[in-house]
This record gives sequence, C-alpha cells and structure tokens, in this order.
Amino acid sequence: MILQKFKSNIVSHLSYFLGSDGEAAVVDPELDCQIYLDSAEQGQMKIKYVFETHRNEDFIVGSKALSDSTGAAICHGSWPEYKYGELVNDGQEFEVGDLLVKALYTPGHTPGCISYAVTDLESGNENVLVFTGDALFVNEVGRTDFGGLEKKREWSENLYDSIFNRLLPLGDHVIICPAHGAGSICGSDIAQREFSTLGAERLMNPRLQLSREEFIEYKLKERHNYPPYFRLMEEYNIVGTTSIGPCESYESLVPQEFKNMVNEGAAVLDTRSASAFSSAHIAGSYSIPLSHLSFTGWFISHETPVLTIVEDVLHLKEVSELERIGYDDLHGYLAGGMASWYSQGYPTESSRIIDADELKSWLDSEKDFYLLDVRSKDEFQRGHIQSATNIPVTDLQDRVSEVPKDQPIAAICSSGNRSGIGAKILLRNGYKDVYNVAGGMTAWRKLGYPVLK
Amino acid sequence: MILQKFKSNIVSHLSYFLGSDGEAAVVDPELDCQIYLDSAEQGQMKIKYVFETHRNEDFIVGSKALSDSTGAAICHGSWPEYKYGELVNDGQEFEVGDLLVKALYTPGHTPGCISYAVTDLESGNENVLVFTGDALFVNEVGRTDFGGLEKKREWSENLYDSIFNRLLPLGDHVIICPAHGAGSICGSDIAQREFSTLGAERLMNPRLQLSREEFIEYKLKERHNYPPYFRLMEEYNIVGTTSIGPCESYESLVPQEFKNMVNEGAAVLDTRSASAFSSAHIAGSYSIPLSHLSFTGWFISHETPVLTIVEDVLHLKEVSELERIGYDDLHGYLAGGMASWYSQGYPTESSRIIDADELKSWLDSEKDFYLLDVRSKDEFQRGHIQSATNIPVTDLQDRVSEVPKDQPIAAICSSGNRSGIGAKILLRNGYKDVYNVAGGMTAWRKLGYPVLK
Amino acid sequence: MILQKFKSNIVSHLSYFLGSDGEAAVVDPELDCQIYLDSAEQGQMKIKYVFETHRNEDFIVGSKALSDSTGAAICHGSWPEYKYGELVNDGQEFEVGDLLVKALYTPGHTPGCISYAVTDLESGNENVLVFTGDALFVNEVGRTDFGGLEKKREWSENLYDSIFNRLLPLGDHVIICPAHGAGSICGSDIAQREFSTLGAERLMNPRLQLSREEFIEYKLKERHNYPPYFRLMEEYNIVGTTSIGPCESYESLVPQEFKNMVNEGAAVLDTRSASAFSSAHIAGSYSIPLSHLSFTGWFISHETPVLTIVEDVLHLKEVSELERIGYDDLHGYLAGGMASWYSQGYPTESSRIIDADELKSWLDSEKDFYLLDVRSKDEFQRGHIQSATNIPVTDLQDRVSEVPKDQPIAAICSSGNRSGIGAKILLRNGYKDVYNVAGGMTAWRKLGYPVLK
Amino acid sequence: MILQKFKSNIVSHLSYFLGSDGEAAVVDPELDCQIYLDSAEQGQMKIKYVFETHRNEDFIVGSKALSDSTGAAICHGSWPEYKYGELVNDGQEFEVGDLLVKALYTPGHTPGCISYAVTDLESGNENVLVFTGDALFVNEVGRTDFGGLEKKREWSENLYDSIFNRLLPLGDHVIICPAHGAGSICGSDIAQREFSTLGAERLMNPRLQLSREEFIEYKLKERHNYPPYFRLMEEYNIVGTTSIGPCESYESLVPQEFKNMVNEGAAVLDTRSASAFSSAHIAGSYSIPLSHLSFTGWFISHETPVLTIVEDVLHLKEVSELERIGYDDLHGYLAGGMASWYSQGYPTESSRIIDADELKSWLDSEKDFYLLDVRSKDEFQRGHIQSATNIPVTDLQDRVSEVPKDQPIAAICSSGNRSGIGAKILLRNGYKDVYNVAGGMTAWRKLGYPVLK
Repeated sequence: MILQKFKSNIVSHLSYFLGSDGEAAVVDPELDCQIYLDSAEQGQMKIKYVFETHRNEDFIVGSKALSDSTGAAICHGSWPEYKYGELVNDGQEFEVGDLLVKALYTPGHTPGCISYAVTDLESGNENVLVFTGDALFVNEVGRTDFGGLEKKREWSENLYDSIFNRLLPLGDHVIICPAHGAGSICGSDIAQREFSTLGAERLMNPRLQLSREEFIEYKLKERHNYPPYFRLMEEYNIVGTTSIGPCESYESLVPQEFKNMVNEGAAVLDTRSASAFSSAHIAGSYSIPLSHLSFTGWFISHETPVLTIVEDVLHLKEVSELERIGYDDLHGYLAGGMASWYSQGYPTESSRIIDADELKSWLDSEKDFYLLDVRSKDEFQRGHIQSATNIPVTDLQDRVSEVPKDQPIAAICSSGNRSGIGAKILLRNGYKDVYNVAGGMTAWRKLGYPVLK
Repeated sequence: MILQKFKSNIVSHLSYFLGSDGEAAVVDPELDCQIYLDSAEQGQMKIKYVFETHRNEDFIVGSKALSDSTGAAICHGSWPEYKYGELVNDGQEFEVGDLLVKALYTPGHTPGCISYAVTDLESGNENVLVFTGDALFVNEVGRTDFGGLEKKREWSENLYDSIFNRLLPLGDHVIICPAHGAGSICGSDIAQREFSTLGAERLMNPRLQLSREEFIEYKLKERHNYPPYFRLMEEYNIVGTTSIGPCESYESLVPQEFKNMVNEGAAVLDTRSASAFSSAHIAGSYSIPLSHLSFTGWFISHETPVLTIVEDVLHLKEVSELERIGYDDLHGYLAGGMASWYSQGYPTESSRIIDADELKSWLDSEKDFYLLDVRSKDEFQRGHIQSATNIPVTDLQDRVSEVPKDQPIAAICSSGNRSGIGAKILLRNGYKDVYNVAGGMTAWRKLGYPVLK
Repeated sequence: MILQKFKSNIVSHLSYFLGSDGEAAVVDPELDCQIYLDSAEQGQMKIKYVFETHRNEDFIVGSKALSDSTGAAICHGSWPEYKYGELVNDGQEFEVGDLLVKALYTPGHTPGCISYAVTDLESGNENVLVFTGDALFVNEVGRTDFGGLEKKREWSENLYDSIFNRLLPLGDHVIICPAHGAGSICGSDIAQREFSTLGAERLMNPRLQLSREEFIEYKLKERHNYPPYFRLMEEYNIVGTTSIGPCESYESLVPQEFKNMVNEGAAVLDTRSASAFSSAHIAGSYSIPLSHLSFTGWFISHETPVLTIVEDVLHLKEVSELERIGYDDLHGYLAGGMASWYSQGYPTESSRIIDADELKSWLDSEKDFYLLDVRSKDEFQRGHIQSATNIPVTDLQDRVSEVPKDQPIAAICSSGNRSGIGAKILLRNGYKDVYNVAGGMTAWRKLGYPVLK
Repeated sequence: MILQKFKSNIVSHLSYFLGSDGEAAVVDPELDCQIYLDSAEQGQMKIKYVFETHRNEDFIVGSKALSDSTGAAICHGSWPEYKYGELVNDGQEFEVGDLLVKALYTPGHTPGCISYAVTDLESGNENVLVFTGDALFVNEVGRTDFGGLEKKREWSENLYDSIFNRLLPLGDHVIICPAHGAGSICGSDIAQREFSTLGAERLMNPRLQLSREEFIEYKLKERHNYPPYFRLMEEYNIVGTTSIGPCESYESLVPQEFKNMVNEGAAVLDTRSASAFSSAHIAGSYSIPLSHLSFTGWFISHETPVLTIVEDVLHLKEVSELERIGYDDLHGYLAGGMASWYSQGYPTESSRIIDADELKSWLDSEKDFYLLDVRSKDEFQRGHIQSATNIPVTDLQDRVSEVPKDQPIAAICSSGNRSGIGAKILLRNGYKDVYNVAGGMTAWRKLGYPVLK
C-alpha cells in the first residue's frame, strides 16, 4: 500500500496517489497527470477512481485528463453541476485494493464539498486517514466567501458543523490529507507542516478552539484575496479539461523576434530575482520572481501571449506551471536571457535597490521621498514604518493615482519580492525614481528600527 | 517544514529526514547517506542531529558517515556502549528549527531503545509525531529475543511498559514513524501501510489488544529468524562505519575471467527470476531473485568475493544494496549476462519448472517423487499439501541429508522464489532431478486443490 | 555549434540534431521527437529545418510531428509524392546559424534520395560533413531492391554513380553521418563503428573497392529481408504522421484481465530472455527478447491489440519503441510479471534449453532428433552442423510443414535468441518436444566442434 | 564500438571514452571519473587503458583516480617525469577490443606530447581517428610557451614538424579528437565546431596555411594568458591525484555563519549574473558569473576557504567544477541566497548597470567620466571606443593605481561579464562610483556607434 503526496508549488496545492494491491485512486489531480501514471506503472497498479473533494477555484484540475487516459471513474459532489464524472452520495463506499474509501459530505467551503475517509481492511475497521479537501487544513479551515456576502453566514455554519459533527467524530487518531499547504490563498494561516491528525487539529488548530458562535463571527470578519483568474478556473473545472501536461515546447526567441512580439502586444514575464530585475529590464515587463509565480494571475491577462525571461533555462519547467492556472499560450522565451538583449543594444529600464540601513538614513536625514508599503492591510496593521503609506500590491494598479509623481518612491514589503512587483507597476505608470527596499520589513526589524502597530 | 521517509528495500528499513527553517535531523540513516545530503541541499538546511533509535542489527547504519561529512551530533541510547556519538538522557530536548524533539527511553526490543517525540512549536505544545524505532510498528511490535532466552521475559515486560506507559500516553493523535515496514524480519506481521498513529495502533494493532500477561506470553512463544550475518552488523554498528555509499564500480568480467574467479572460490549470486534461473545456470551459483536479496545474508559468506549475474545491468544498482548488510566485496558481474556464458559453450546446469496443475497430476497419478515444502514452520502449519515434508529453506543446507537422493524432488513455497533457492541448494548437493513449482501454494490454493492444516 | 546523434535501437536508425548560433536542423527525426525539442531548449536554439534523406521504409518518421510543434520547414526529395513538406532542389542551400547546408541528389537506394553536405562558414568553404541517408553507410551501401526486380539494375547503377560522382568528390576529409548503424536490415554488413569519413569509406568500404560492373553485379545478387510491416511504414511516411511520442500509459493488467484479452484475440509479446521464456510461458505467446524487438514486425499483426510481458517494468519504455514501427495499440502489460500468472495457477507451456555440449552428445550418441537451423541462408552457408536443416526463422511459419512432428526438435541459431523465437513458432504449431540450443553456433564453434561450409 | 566525448565546461576540456567488444580506454580523463565508470557499466566493458596525451596544465587529470578504481594501465609520454603510470614508446600499440591504438610522439606543445591513432580492425588497416591532445585543435594549434621564451622557437619548430610530418601523413580521412574546444585558453581561436578531420584542418586551419617559417614566426609573436593556478595544476598532474569526484556536500550556511566566515578571511564567490550582482552584493565578494567560472583561478587564492552565492541551488553542481582546477575547500553556500542576506539587514554594496545608449549619451554630453575597457590587448586593438583606456581584467588588480579615483568609472568588455568582474575589483579597491556597460562592445557595435581600430 502506498500514499504519495504531490505538491504543485504555484498554488500550494496537494494531490494524493493512494494505492493498494494493484488498484489506485487519485485525489484532486493536477492537470499534467503523467506523475500519477508513473506511480501507477511503477506500482503495477490500475487507477480506478479519481476523487474530487470540491470544485477547485485556484487551478485547473486534471480529473478528466486522467480519466481519459486510464478509464478511471471520476467522483464528485453535488455542487456545482459538473459536465463530467459522477455524483457521489453521502456515505457511498469504494474499494481500492484492501482499502475502503467512504465519501462524507462536508459542505461549508462550498456546498458540494466531500471528504473521503479511508479504512485499511488489512488492519481493521477503524478509519486511518481522511482527505479533507478545503474543509480542514493544518492549523486552518477553508474560506467560506465564494458564495458572496449573502451566503457567507450559512456556509460558515455548515463548515463548523462539517468539522465538528462529521470529521472530528472519526477519531483523534485519523490522519488528515488536506488539499492545500502553506502559501495557498485558500486559507490564511496554513502551517508549514504538511501532516497532521484530527486530534492534533482538535487540540491546536486555532479555529477549532472557538465556540460555534465565535467561529462564525471569525469567518464573517475574515477577508480573502480573490484573484481575477479564479473565475476562469471555475469555468474550466465545471466543464473538465483534457489536455495533459504543460506545453513541452517553448519557442526560443532571439531578441529581434522577442521585441517584435512585445511590440505586437505580448506580455513579458520576467522571473529573475528582484535584484537582477531592478538593475536592468525591458520596459513594460512584469517582475514576477519564480517564488511568486501565482501573482501572474493578478497582473497578466489570459488573452495575450506570454513571453518569458529566465535566469536559467532550467527554470522554464517551473514557469510552465502557469498552465495549471490557465496560461496556455506560454509562447516563448528570450534565448540567451537578458544578456542577449543587452548585447543588441536594445533599451532597458531600471529601478534601484536600497537596503534597510539606507532607508533608515533617508528617514533620519529627512530626505524628501514617499514610502510605499505594498503588503496586505493585515500585515501593515501588525507593524509598519511610521511614515509609510499602505497600498497592497494587488490594488496598486487601480490606486496608482494616489502615489505622488514628484517625489522619489521607496517601495517596501516583507522581503523585497512584492515591492519589486510594485516598483515595476510604478515604472509602467510613468514613475521614474523608484527604489525597492531589499530585505524589506524583515531586515528593518532585525536591525531593531522602530515599528508602529 | 519537511518530513521525508526513505525505504531501503533490502531489509525494509525506514529512515527519516526531518527539517524545519534551515535545520534538519536524520533518524536511523542508511549507509549511503548522499540521499540526506541531497535533501539538505535542496531544502537549504544544515543537518544538526543524527538520532538513532537503537543499535540496528540487520543493516549497517550510516550515522558516523553522515556525521563525518556534516558535523552533525549523533544521539543514541545507553545500550550497548557505542564507540562513537553521544549518550542521550531520557527527556533530553533538541531544537531543530521550529521543532522540539524530545528523547523518550522506550526499552524492550533492546534495553537502549529510544523514541523521539516531536512538537511543532509553530502550532503549539502538543506532540505531532514520534519516531518509534523497533518498539512499535504498524500492526506489530518489536521482537524481544536478541538478549537470548534468559532475557526474553524481562525485555518483553519492558516493551509492554514502554508502549503502554510511555508511548500511548502521548495521545491518540500522534503520528508514528517506525524503523521498519512490511517484509522486515524485525517484526513478523508488519502491515503494508507505512503510516499510522498511536490511536490507530491502540485500536487495531493485534498485540496491543492483549493484556500485559497475554502480551508477555505471546512474545515468549514467538519465534524469529536470526540470520548469521546479524552478528556482523552488530559489531559494525557499535564501532560506527564511515564509508559512504555502495561501491560504484563493479568490474565487468568476460566469461573467461568470471570462470577463473569462480574456480578460485568466488561466490556466484544469480539474481534472475526463478524461471530464468531454472532453465540454465552456472553450477555452484546461488539463485537469489532481486526481490529476495536479503537471503544472501543466509547463504553467502562475507569472506569471499561475490560475483553477480543480472538480467539487466540496471539491476546492479539494486544488488549494491548488499553493501548495507556488509557485503563490501561485490567484485564484478558477468558482462553480457548468461547469454555470453552460453556463447562460450561453458557448462550449465538446470532444474525445471512445473506448474501447480502438473504437480496435481503427478500426485493423482501416484508418480514416485518427494514433495519438499521449504516455507517456514508457521506457514506450513497454516496449510500444506498432504504428502509434503517441511524443511524451511534457511535450514535446508544443514538438513539436506533428510532429502532422499533416489527420487525426483519437487520443491514448493508460497510463490516459487524460495523453492527456487531451495532447488538450487539441492543441486549444489548433488541432487539431479529437481523441480520448482511455479506459483507454489498460492497457485495450488487458487486452483482449489486440497490443503491440510 | 553542436552535432548530436540519436540512435533508435529498434531499427538501428540514426537521426541527427545539428545546431549553430541559435538555429538548428534535424535530419530524419524519429516519431517521439521530444528529444530534439529538449536539445533545442538546452541550446537555446530554434529548429528551422527538418531534412529527410529519403522516404524511410522501416520506421515512422517524425518530421510532421516535429514541424507541427516547432514550425520547422520539412525538406525532402522528389520521390515519392509526399503529402506534406517541400520538395528540395538539387543544389539548394539552407542556412543554419553559421552553417551552410546544401542538398545533393543521390538516388540509388530509391530515386528520391538526398544527401545534405554541410559547410561551417566560421572555418571556411570546404565541406565538413555530409548526411548520407541510406546511400552510404559505414562499411556498406544502401540496398537497391525496393523497386522490385525490374528496377534493381537501374537503381544499383544510380547508387554507384551517386557515391562515386557526387559523394566521394566532396573530399576524403568529409565526415559521413548515415541513417543507419549496425543491426539495421537496410544494409547487410554495416560496421559497429558509427563514425567515418568519405576517405575512410573510399579506402576500406568493401563495396567501394569494386568496379562499377562488379558493384552492380554484387547488388543484383544481393538478397534482403522485406518484413511485411514495411508496406505500412511506407504508407505512413508518405502521408506524414503527427502523434508525438510513444503512448505513455500502458494499462496494468491483472492475470484475469490479461487472460480475458488473450482469449479475445490479443497478441502476447513476451520480451523475457530466451532462457526465462523457455522454462514456462503462456500458450500462444511470442518470444521476442528485448534485443530482437524489431522481429515483432514479422510475427505480430498491426491489427490486434498487443499485450506485453516484461522481466522488469523498466523495460516497458524500450517496448514502447514498437510504436515507431507502427504498433499503436500497446495495450497493457501483465502486472507482477509471469510470477503473478503462475500464482493464479494458470496454465503454462515450456520448451527446454540444452547447451552445445549436450547437443554434441546427442549427435555422438545418434539420438533420434531433428536439428533445425533457423539462421539466414547466407549464415547457414558460411558454416553449419552437418545434420542440420535450414529454415530461416522469418520463413518458419510458412514452411512449418517441412518440420517432422514425430521427433524431438533442437532449434539452433547463432546465439539462442532466434532459435528461441523459432522454438516458440513450433510450439504454436503443435510441436511438443522442442529444445533451444543456448549459445548456438557461437558456442559450438568455441568448443571446436565440426562445422560444414 | 562506441566513442563518447565528455566536455568539462570550466576549461573547455574534452575527454573521450572509446570502447569496443568489452574493452575500453579513456583519453585524458577528468578528475570526477564516475562518468567513465558509468559508460563502462552500461557498455559492459572493462577500462583497460588510460591514455594521456600530455601533462595537462589547466585542470587536474583523473588518470590515477580512474586507474585506482579499475586497474587500468596509465600511458603517458616522456616529459615530465611522472610519479605514476607508464612511459609509452613511439609507435607502441595497444589493443582495445577490435581496435588497435598506436602511440605517436608529437612534441611541440610540450616535449612529451603524444597522439594516439586508432585503427578499426573490423574494417581494415587504415586509421580512422586520432587523439591529438594539445597538438592540433579544430582551427587552431597548441600553444608553445610553457617552456618559457628560451624554448619557444624550438617547441614551435617541433609542433610544426609533428603536425606536418606525423599527423597529416595519416591521411585526410582521419577524424581528429583534440583535448580542448572553443573557450579554452590553451588555444586562442579554437572553433565552436568540435569535430573535424586531418583533411579539413589541412585545408582550412589558418595555422596550417602558413609555411614553416611563417608558422614559427606566428607562434613566436603569439601571447597567451598564464593564470597563476596553472603552476599548481602542473604539480598535481606530475604526482597524480586520486580523489574521485567533486565534494558532494556543501554546507548550508545561514547569513550569520556566512558573515562570520567572511570576517575570518573566507573568499566569497558570487556566481549570479552581472546585472544581479551589480544591484546589491556583499562587500569584498568576487563577481564571477557561472559562464566565467575559470576566472576564479585568476582572482581567488587556493589557500582560503571559498564561500559561494548562487541564484539557484541547482547551480552548486556547476560551481563544484572548481575542484577540477584545484579548489578543494568549497566550504559552503549562503542558504536562501542573497535574499536571506538582505533580510538580515546586513550591509551591501552596489555598482550600477548602464546600457550602451546611455554610455553614448554620456560621451555626447561630454560628461566627466573614465571609460575603462577590460578586454585583452588583442581585442582592444581590433576595435574600441575612442576615449577608452585598456587594462585587461586579469591585470587590473596589479594596475589599479592607473585608474583615477576622482571620476565615475564606466567599465566595458565585449558583453558585460568581464567588465562586471572588473567593476568589482574597483569597488574592492575603494572606488565608489562604478558603472558596468550591459551588452558591452557587442551592443555598441550593433547600434552602429563609432569604433576605432
């Protein structure tokens, strides 16, 4: 018997391959499902079921692609009305080798959410693990805002009841396998640790320490990001998407071709580090370091071809994870990287890096500049530099007119990545004298400089 | 935070890499410890501790090698007197990034056994997992016979108390990480499933359903194999072994060289399948299919060079796992495989495969032959063919005189692998007319033929 | 600048990736053309041209697939009338980075054959290499029989003239890159060495030592195999085939499913070694060891699903090369290999291995048996055992009635692989007492036993 | 028969694995010789010989390490007096399977240089290829300056005679396998193309178009770099070095540890791109982009520990090639990269990137600055910007006092890499206002700006 966990970095999504005695099931597969086929071949197993815990909103699910290439049955819940697969009943049971998998309706995150509890008949009749989807994460619970304000109370009540009346009663000893890990925007405070049990959550998950009323109150106050590309994912996941795997063939573009495509409207995604980006980059490009790839979904349209700049061609493989969030026209990359662009004498722009010490000296010397903090409202409130103004980076394009044009701008976030993205948004909007604070608030704090709460 | 499990197939040993926030620990590392160095590099972590749960008896532990190349401190228990590393006190705590690891004396398997309970301070003060070594497996508990008959009762009592008074009180919700999985001879009935919790074991582990007296009684009656090579492993693991990795360079031997070395006393390990082996093989070779590699420890001396025959050179990598059980003179392999031997016109021997149906017809027709069942005594008692005589394969060399020389011999086990090994032992002892029953008792049962209990 | 050679084992086909300064060309690509895309990505090059040297007869060419995914122009000769790509003129030139590639009509193997001579402008105007397709191999020249007997003289004349008047004049210093290496049936005696120059061929290629008349005479006498699947390849390669890559997903079949599909008419391809096969195999299966995979094209219809038995699942990747010769329904493989079949108690057949010494003793003792030599007529004439009868394995099914049914049969070839295939053909035709001589004539000769020429 | 070429990027060194019929030889192996062991295992071959073409000066040769692990005999020439291996006589022959390898004294580059000509007995008695070491490259010949000025004429004469009297007479058709490709400083103008023949060189190699007198004159005028680390390599290669492989285990260092080691004198090698480096880096670090790794040998002492900064941990593998040029204390790398340094608020320095257009506008506006061209004297003479001053980057540290301290400095090379290294040397010497011209002279020329010859 094997249980394998696969992590899709771009949205911190976790999928699972569960196999026993020649049979297997996959839970919430990602689009490029060769990884599950490989597991099946190595384990000499047949993939019998694809279990969906819910209609995913943040990436394209691979259920249909995987089913098409294996004949596996796809199982999902009653909401929304899927155009593929089969509706599973509450309590319905499935055999996977020596395992018994039982569907458990756990609405709340959305109405059709299902958990799947697993018994290992080789050992006995007690459950050994449960796939909790977006109902219960390690240290967090699912968000309940996808139905809009009018549904939020009802869905939050449902979530509380699902967790307390359906999941926890399975027993403290049951291992949980959630659909997301730390970094996902499907839960604010998911722990770094990717394994837990119902008991550990009952004892330590901060949301589960609340009373029902407190829980609902907490959920009603909670605010989450809703990137514009989610709408598209939802559409894809109702219909079912069948292409397997990221496009394997990026076109290698020489600077001349690259420039022509930019002139014709292609978007440029520059994945180099914030510091490399700042010193020289192509006008109009977007700075999105590899570690923040999912931000692409906020800034770049799905309608235009996307051209990529990488520090190393090895990174193209990571970039192709963008196909999982719907970018299917990853057209090509700049052959030779930025060095080949420079060598053509083509024009570049630059912002500039300063470190936290230099920022401090600017403040101490009362230099005239505008300090822009691009972190989220919550982060800002937990501590910021006195003179800073907060505009979250995801709002910056819409609120750019609030930023003065006649002063130098220093952008700051927690580390320098989001402020790099922000600095670039300013440059795109005609700001000239833009600085990115390397190390951000983390460095500021380490140096013991004053923070206002 | 990451937890990685590594399985060493040859003895079903499980080791663990545990990392958090730039720091890491490895539990019971295997000898070729590059895998842990790779994890550390990828995670940008420093290996700070090597935790040993006990002095391992069945493979060479890589603690000293790993410590030498990383500077990690080695932690182990009070028995035996190790020549390296540091003695850990009961209750001693270690920080690994955001994790707190606490040593917990859990004697029983041997007196110096330690479990290590882990708290994730990011989430709270409850334990989240415990490394249980050979104290507690999934569905099984550790064996208690390494101290000999005179210590068995005491050690069994200790084991019961360690499990019930020290481990289970950590809470049902705690995930267990044992040192062995299914197939290990350190526990008779370890489950295929490699994950569990203290609660799941409390509820379903058959040994934990017994009272203290029943438990001790059970352990006293239990019989385990003790392969001769264990003694050597124990010696290695007291001293600490430092060579990293299996020998990377097998010598490619042409048939002439291979034959010369055989004549000079080298042992020949033929890893092909039982059926390939049976049709033609080198006189004096040992049939040990890849899936049964640990049987080498029963039959081949550590003092002689070992020559290997593989179906595919890709299999040499698997064969090199033998270094983990002390075979450090894996001298070379037959270039071109058996085909090159045949092409020289060099002599071969053969046994012959029959299937279960043919065996049945032999019995029905009252053919004169001797049916030798080479499974363990326990397996034999759970069901065998009426006319079969039982000599376990591991005893066969010593008891070979019990097998008549004037009849055809049909060897049977559960599937055909051990009977293949046994058939070869007979051939080595001068028996000529030897048959291996393909599919063994499994096939016999599937066909509905009579079984005597 | 890079030149990479890729070998497709199944038909000893060689394809080439040639790149310089951001541009690349591929010569005679194989169907699963991801390898060329990887080279292009790693070298940051754009694939600009696909050069076909001729309409390939023995495998499916990947030109169209590669062009579809890269936009590369496909260049080929005037015969046959392709349904895709572009006709290249004699002398037409192409730029690939700093390289100049010039098409050179070299008819003979077939009328439309083209060679491509390459100049490296970085160094000067002399040719540095030439892609010779099936015109000129290392130590051999192309076959000229695809036009039938009536065209053979004309094509042979053309080939001689192409080599002597068009290729050799390029100069002794020019490196040749042919389309096939040793083992291909597109040339009888291709050398093991896969690199050469026009000068080395001029000096040492045995065909090039002949006068024009001798050359033509030689070609007229030459006989080649024409496997039935060639006809299908020709059809595919006129139209252009677009699927990229072998099917990635074999179905894992448990014995019951496997057996059902066999009963419904699926063909069983058993790729284990001849010795493993002989001791026990499924009735009706074909013994085709991995090293002889292209023999599938002789024996198994393209119309039926093909089921596979492998010694190791790692071998499935090699088996999938069969897609290159048109087997696109590689349906599944037996999970657990033959061991799982045995364990069901399902029926097996066996032949038996004898070694050359045993064969000698049979002959010496005047045992009554029929010695069948399944090598080609040429090989047989170069030396055989006195009492042997020759029926080439590729003719055996058609001529099986010539083999007596009332005697034991010993099949022999050079090593044991083809005689294993032959032994199985006999078993399929109802022969019961069949032996395969391990080591074959090679062993027979090594042992110094008499050979008749 | 196989011929494999391995390229060691750091010094553009080419080594070769030559195998036939179970036997193999390796020519000029690199230190981490697992690659040859893998080839031997895959080809089921025994490595019988290690052929050295000459005592290598620019990297540590792996002959002794490879011999130690395989028993292969090491063959080399009469100069210098090696402490290991065997002296080969002119004309001595060696069998490698079906190949005959013949040593051919070809002094000139150094007195003991040997070429090895190969005949393929399967085809005939003509040579098919020759390993030419540092005597003859593609488009270039070896340097002759290692004996100092007093020997240069004699060695140049010898080289001419070796090429014209010993190599070329082997015939135009013979393929050459030299010891270096483009980028090596063992030859100024080696072509990108890595394959050629004696005939192609005879016709196109510019040095071979000269008369004997012209050739010697040319060699006497030629100037080559002699990096200080060469002396150390020579010492290593006389004695023979035995450690196999680069150190596999870099230590992961948190910023605090990294900083402490820097304070204690460790050297910091920053391998990020010039643009990433320029915007913020650690004071005292060296900017050596991955593509220019061999420059380490000019700037960083072999006596100090070396700490590394990489853009991606994947690059550590490339950095470990430094062991091939004697850096055996590659101590550790900065965990988390520069981002983790920034986050500590630790101090950084920066230079700044300008593009060629900005440089032009500086010149046009008569801005007061100093334009420093760090290319080699030859490159500078072939074309430079009028106001530029030339100090080759390898001389810059010694001649830094020539650079004015009271002006901004713009450093330029061909592309921006060496000028980045140079900019950093200036910063290390207290210059504050330093600019690196991205794209360098390549961009300047593309833009059509004036160049002085």
